[in-house]
Amino acid sequence: MSGTPIDSLPASPLLIRNVRPLGGPACDVLVREGVLAGVGPGLALPAGCAVEEGGGALLLPGLVEGHTHLDKTLWGMPWYCNEVGDRLIDRIDNERAFRAASGHDAAAQSLHLAKAFLALGTTRLRTHVDIDTQAGLRHLDGVLQTRSAMAPLQQIQIVAFPQSGLLQRAGTAELLESAIEQGADVLGGLDPTAIDADPVRSLDVLFGIAERRGCPVDIHLHEPGAMGAFSLDLILERCAALGMQGKVVVSHGFCLGELPERERDALLARMARLDVALVTSAPPARPVPPLLVCRQAGVTVFGGNDGIRDTWTPYGSPDMLERAMLIGLRYNLRRDDDIAAALDCVTHAGARGCGFADYGLAPGARADLVLVEAESLAQAVVARPMRKLVMAAGRVVARDSRLVPALAGAVHESG
Amino acid sequence: MSGTPIDSLPASPLLIRNVRPLGGPACDVLVREGVLAGVGPGLALPAGCAVEEGGGALLLPGLVEGHTHLDKTLWGMPWYCNEVGDRLIDRIDNERAFRAASGHDAAAQSLHLAKAFLALGTTRLRTHVDIDTQAGLRHLDGVLQTRSAMAPLQQIQIVAFPQSGLLQRAGTAELLESAIEQGADVLGGLDPTAIDADPVRSLDVLFGIAERRGCPVDIHLHEPGAMGAFSLDLILERCAALGMQGKVVVSHGFCLGELPERERDALLARMARLDVALVTSAPPARPVPPLLVCRQAGVTVFGGNDGIRDTWTPYGSPDMLERAMLIGLRYNLRRDDDIAAALDCVTHAGARGCGFADYGLAPGARADLVLVEAESLAQAVVARPMRKLVMAAGRVVARDSRLVPALAGAVHESG
Repeated sequence: MSGTPIDSLPASPLLIRNVRPLGGPACDVLVREGVLAGVGPGLALPAGCAVEEGGGALLLPGLVEGHTHLDKTLWGMPWYCNEVGDRLIDRIDNERAFRAASGHDAAAQSLHLAKAFLALGTTRLRTHVDIDTQAGLRHLDGVLQTRSAMAPLQQIQIVAFPQSGLLQRAGTAELLESAIEQGADVLGGLDPTAIDADPVRSLDVLFGIAERRGCPVDIHLHEPGAMGAFSLDLILERCAALGMQGKVVVSHGFCLGELPERERDALLARMARLDVALVTSAPPARPVPPLLVCRQAGVTVFGGNDGIRDTWTPYGSPDMLERAMLIGLRYNLRRDDDIAAALDCVTHAGARGCGFADYGLAPGARADLVLVEAESLAQAVVARPMRKLVMAAGRVVARDSRLVPALAGAVHESG
Repeated sequence: MSGTPIDSLPASPLLIRNVRPLGGPACDVLVREGVLAGVGPGLALPAGCAVEEGGGALLLPGLVEGHTHLDKTLWGMPWYCNEVGDRLIDRIDNERAFRAASGHDAAAQSLHLAKAFLALGTTRLRTHVDIDTQAGLRHLDGVLQTRSAMAPLQQIQIVAFPQSGLLQRAGTAELLESAIEQGADVLGGLDPTAIDADPVRSLDVLFGIAERRGCPVDIHLHEPGAMGAFSLDLILERCAALGMQGKVVVSHGFCLGELPERERDALLARMARLDVALVTSAPPARPVPPLLVCRQAGVTVFGGNDGIRDTWTPYGSPDMLERAMLIGLRYNLRRDDDIAAALDCVTHAGARGCGFADYGLAPGARADLVLVEAESLAQAVVARPMRKLVMAAGRVVARDSRLVPALAGAVHESG
C-alpha cells in the first residue's frame, strides 16, 4: 500500500474466543499463517499465541464487493455538483469530458475507496475500469497500482471495461486486449445492442478476445425487455460454444426483471446450466432480476454497489452490509431466512460468482474475518453495525470500522 | 421525559457562528427563548449570550418524520426473528397476537425510539397508533405518555389508527372516537375497499367522526391501481363535501404509481386543489406515486419510515437523512437539485403536510436546528453525516448524534 508499512502488521497466530460464525453457536477460531487453522468450541491456546476476546460477536467472512468502479470515484474529494442529463449517453459523455478536464487521478481515488472498503470489512472486490480511446489505459494503470498496493490484504479483480462502447470508437478492442495483457483479470462488455448497435459483431469481437486470452468476461447488460433477452441469448450461445462455463458474469441483467415468466425461466435455466452468474446493485427505480427466483433456478446472484460517489451517481457506500440491506429492501425480504439470502449476495455468492478462492469460514480458508455486534445475520444486515474487528489474510486491519494506524494513511473513510 | 430533567437543559440565549443555512452563504444564528431570533451575517453578540462555533457546517431545520408507528417498534429489544407470511393480513394478525402474548410495552418502546429520533435531529414526528378491539386504547395510552414526556422538545402528532380495519370488528369506530377524545390529534384510516370491504360505509363512518370531532384525517391507502383510485376518489369527494381542505393526508397512495397518466394527473389536480397531501416511505418493491410529478402538480409529498424494526419489518431507522437517501434512490434522483426535493420530504414538506407550525429557518421559527458537516444538501442526504449539533425548541439536545447526558437515560440509539 503506497507509503504504508503493511509488512509491519503482525501476521502472528491469534486465537479469537467466543464468536458465533454466521450466527451459529459460539466457538473459537484459530488464525495462523493467514488462514483459518481451526474453528470449534474450546480450542486449545497454542504456546505464544495471542488471544482476542470475541465477546459473543457475530462472525462473518470478509465481505465481497462484486461490481464497482473504483477508478471513477470522487470519494473524499470536494463535492461534485451533479447537473447531468438523464440519458445513459449524457452520463457517459459527461464523465469522459470531466475526467479529461479534471485530470482525475484513478490511482489515488481507487486507493482511497479500496481502503474505505477494507475498513468496513470488504476483503475481496471486483472493479470495472474504463478503457476508452481518449484515456487509453490510464485508468487501468492507476487501478493496477491500487491492486498491487492492496494485494497482501485485499484481493482486487480488475475488469477491463469499454464504458464508451466496444465498436463505437475504433481501437477500443485493441485497447481492451492490451489491458488484459497488462494485467486486467476479466474482460468487460457493455450493451452490445443498445450501445454498440451491432450485437453479433460486438459479442464476436469480445468473445474472440476472451478466447485468445483465456480470460473470463463480465458484461454490463442494461438493455430492457426483449432487447436484453436477445443480447443475453447471444451471450449464452457464445458461452456454450466456447466452453466458458463458470467464466461469464452478467452485470445488472435488468431484462430478467421484465420478461414473461416462461421466457425468463428458460433463460435462467440456461444460465444455471452454463454457470453464468448475475450481479445486482438492486436499484429501486428499475426492474431487476427476481433474486429468490434466480437463486431457486440455480443461478448465482451476487451484489455490488455499481458506481460510488462519482459523476454518474452520488449514492453508494463502501459498506457492503448497507448494500445487503438495500438488496433486502429492493426485494422486500423481511423474513430472517430471506434476509440471509441478501447477505449471501455480499459474501459466499459474491466469492463464487467472481471466483475468489479460499473463501469462507471453514478451516483452510484465507482468514478474512469480520466481527459485528449482532444477534443474527438479519440484524447485521438491517442495523449495519460497526465492524468491531476486521481481519484480512490473517492480519488485524481494522477495529471499530477504522483501519489500524499502520494502514490509515490518507484514507477518507467517511467520504 | 420520564425520569429526565428536561427543565435542567439550558434555554439561555445562544449565538451560533458561521453556519450555512440549507447550504447557502455562511451566516450567524441567534437563538433566544426557544425561537430563532436572528439569522444573518455578522450578528452582534448580545450581552451574556453563549457562543457556539459552527465551523462552516451545513444548517438544516429539525427533521420531520411524517409517518411511523412508534407503538409497534421493537427498537432496542432482543432481535425478533421474522417468520411471518407474506400477506397483509398475515402481518396484521401476527402482530396483534404477538403484542397480546408478549405484553409489548408501547410507552417504553415509543419513548426509546422517539429519543433515538431526537438524537438524530428529528424534532417533529407523526405516529400512527393501533386502536383495535383487542388492545383497546392501551397502545394509545403508552404513546400519549411519550408525547407528553417529549413535548418540551419534540412535537409528536398521534394518529388513531384502525390497524385491524374500521368495520371488521364491531366497536372499532367507537374506540377511534374515544381515542380522539383522549387526545389523539388525527383520525386514521385503512384501505376502505380492500380491508373494510365496504368503502362507502367505511369512509362515511370515518369522515363522520372527523366531522363531529373537527379533526384531520390520515388514511393508509395501500390499494393498487383501479381499486385504489376508486377509494381515493371517495376520499376526495368527502374532503370536498366537508370543507376539509388541508386536513386530509393520504399515506402511501401506491395506486398513483400504477394508473394511466391521464387518470393519475386528474387525481393529482384534485388533490392539489383540496390541499390533500401524500406521504411516502418510498418502498423499492412497490409502485409509488411519482415524486417529481406530484410536486409539479402542486401536491405536497412528504416522507416517513413507516414501521421501524417491528413484527412487520426489520428495516427502518430513526435517521431521517437516511429516509431522504432512500427516497432519492427510489426515485433515481441524482442531480443535486432533485436530491434537494428528497430532503424537502423530510423537512419543509413534512412540516407543511402534517401542519407543524413555526417551522423552518426564518426568524420567529421555533429553534429546531441540525448541524452537519456537509458541503451541500445533496451530500447531507447521501452521506448522512453525524449530527454535529441538534437543538430542539432552543435547547441543545444532542451532539455527534448522541443525546446530551441529561437526556440520554435508557435510550437505545443504535437499536
